[in-house]
Amino acid sequence: MKRLTRPLMAATTLAALPLGNVAANSLADNAPIKSVLSAYELALNASDTEAVLKLYENDGVFMAQNSLPSIGTKAIRTAYEGVFQNIELDVDFIIDEIKPLGAHWAFVRTRSQGFVTIKANQQKLAEANQELFIFHKPDDGPWKIARYIFSTTNAQPK
Amino acid sequence: MKRLTRPLMAATTLAALPLGNVAANSLADNAPIKSVLSAYELALNASDTEAVLKLYENDGVFMAQNSLPSIGTKAIRTAYEGVFQNIELDVDFIIDEIKPLGAHWAFVRTRSQGFVTIKANQQKLAEANQELFIFHKPDDGPWKIARYIFSTTNAQPK
Repeated sequence: MKRLTRPLMAATTLAALPLGNVAANSLADNAPIKSVLSAYELALNASDTEAVLKLYENDGVFMAQNSLPSIGTKAIRTAYEGVFQNIELDVDFIIDEIKPLGAHWAFVRTRSQGFVTIKANQQKLAEANQELFIFHKPDDGPWKIARYIFSTTNAQPK
Repeated sequence: MKRLTRPLMAATTLAALPLGNVAANSLADNAPIKSVLSAYELALNASDTEAVLKLYENDGVFMAQNSLPSIGTKAIRTAYEGVFQNIELDVDFIIDEIKPLGAHWAFVRTRSQGFVTIKANQQKLAEANQELFIFHKPDDGPWKIARYIFSTTNAQPK
């Protein structure tokens, strides 16, 4: 299992920057969101559906490639259970951008890469995706995932 | 070529609603964003890269499946030119959700379906995707696409 150990990104830049280039107060501002991203990475790599669900809002939407959108906790649970039944993930997330949109909303653009193991045949394949998260922070609670979509960045199979 | 003629959605609902159920002021508020979505659908179906580019911010990001993110006008132009060289689209967008996040930002969740024709062999295939747009409106300009990602909702090929 791997954690969010790659270079993190400044909120205002579109190109990747190493952690040292990011202003300290920008880092502090985004720390709670980064913490959710780290927890999400851990939960994915542990195939832990309940840990994933704690990071989503109750009316969150999970948009997984090759599936229709999963809306709300019950549908999101079913979707992740389906994923974790079929594959095991070992991926690292790279944060390309964290963009706060006021006190209650933010979006985050990431890429992830690593390996996926198909449980049925133990085949291990290289995995690379890009992700767009919308985070929401209500007045009375922590930042959570409100919307999340990913797609592969691997070339289309011929 | 088809246009945005499917039932539109209220900003606050997650389930699809026909247009008649949407409050009039909610519709009016979101009209400029819907107008951009309609223009995007038209531009895609016309394989018109320059029309697409007018809808994006200069520092926008296009996250196409099977590609790394395209950041900024030049990279976005190259990405769409690549798409339109290889395929012709005939798709309808369905707006599932428009969520304003204050005066300057909004996100939009859509699905699209129709057909893609592979130019190399004129093969016509059923196409179905889901999309997440982040829209931005500066003080001195119209709503534009700031970030955009899609992924197929078709089942994974066996």
